[in-house]
Amino acid sequence: MDELPGALGTSASLALRLGQAIFSTASLFFMCLDVEFYGYTAFCFLVTIMGLVIPWSLTFALVDAYSVVYKRPSPQHGVMSVIIVGDWVLSFLSLAAACSTASVTDILINKTFLCSVQMCSRYQLSGAMAFLSWLLSLASSLINLWLLPSL
Amino acid sequence: MDELPGALGTSASLALRLGQAIFSTASLFFMCLDVEFYGYTAFCFLVTIMGLVIPWSLTFALVDAYSVVYKRPSPQHGVMSVIIVGDWVLSFLSLAAACSTASVTDILINKTFLCSVQMCSRYQLSGAMAFLSWLLSLASSLINLWLLPSL
Repeated sequence: MDELPGALGTSASLALRLGQAIFSTASLFFMCLDVEFYGYTAFCFLVTIMGLVIPWSLTFALVDAYSVVYKRPSPQHGVMSVIIVGDWVLSFLSLAAACSTASVTDILINKTFLCSVQMCSRYQLSGAMAFLSWLLSLASSLINLWLLPSL
Repeated sequence: MDELPGALGTSASLALRLGQAIFSTASLFFMCLDVEFYGYTAFCFLVTIMGLVIPWSLTFALVDAYSVVYKRPSPQHGVMSVIIVGDWVLSFLSLAAACSTASVTDILINKTFLCSVQMCSRYQLSGAMAFLSWLLSLASSLINLWLLPSL
């Protein structure tokens, strides 16, 4: 388990988790700079999902940091299964939220002119950050799923 | 490989592939009943992705049908890797297209009133069919990925 970089408990995994937390926080920050987002279902969905991804990623960043410093053994098969299912669900939800935000922003800019240039660019940045968070989350999930049969 | 239902070459996989093809075709049908979809990026994206999913699913439905009838051995590791990567990419793209369609339709209904009731319900049905196609595609991808290390 310790051979593949990115598996739970390695420093690569710690980097991935910190990256997820940073990008999710940035996404939430750009979306919540004003209070107009709650008028749109897609933006509320993004805020909810990013609010779930941040504590999840930070928790496993702490677990990874603890494992790296104190050289703890890798977790059992059952625990890893739960972590992998959680990772996959959050990864799909992040992708869904990023795509919804991107397409709603596109409609707002090109069809309805309901948002100012500054607001629209914030929504775009928020969607882009959510997409980057999804990419890192996907990497964590794939590596952990790949390692599950060998545990 | 033949033990798990849903692996390439089994009748369960044939059912999954046919389901994907049927739902993708239905999604494309509901979206293309009128010619207004090309004004929206998200709807064009859905049409493109469903146009890719249909031939992909039908090809592997044929491979599965051939394997079921003539009892052919399972494909090699390299071939399976290519199939799994294709499955995963199409699965993510289907989810992205379904979510984009759903959120754009929501905006069109609640904020802009740019589409009639009949048109909006067609867009909603199209998004729902794309979502069902994604679910079946995810099942195929997960089962094949799970079996890859044992090949």
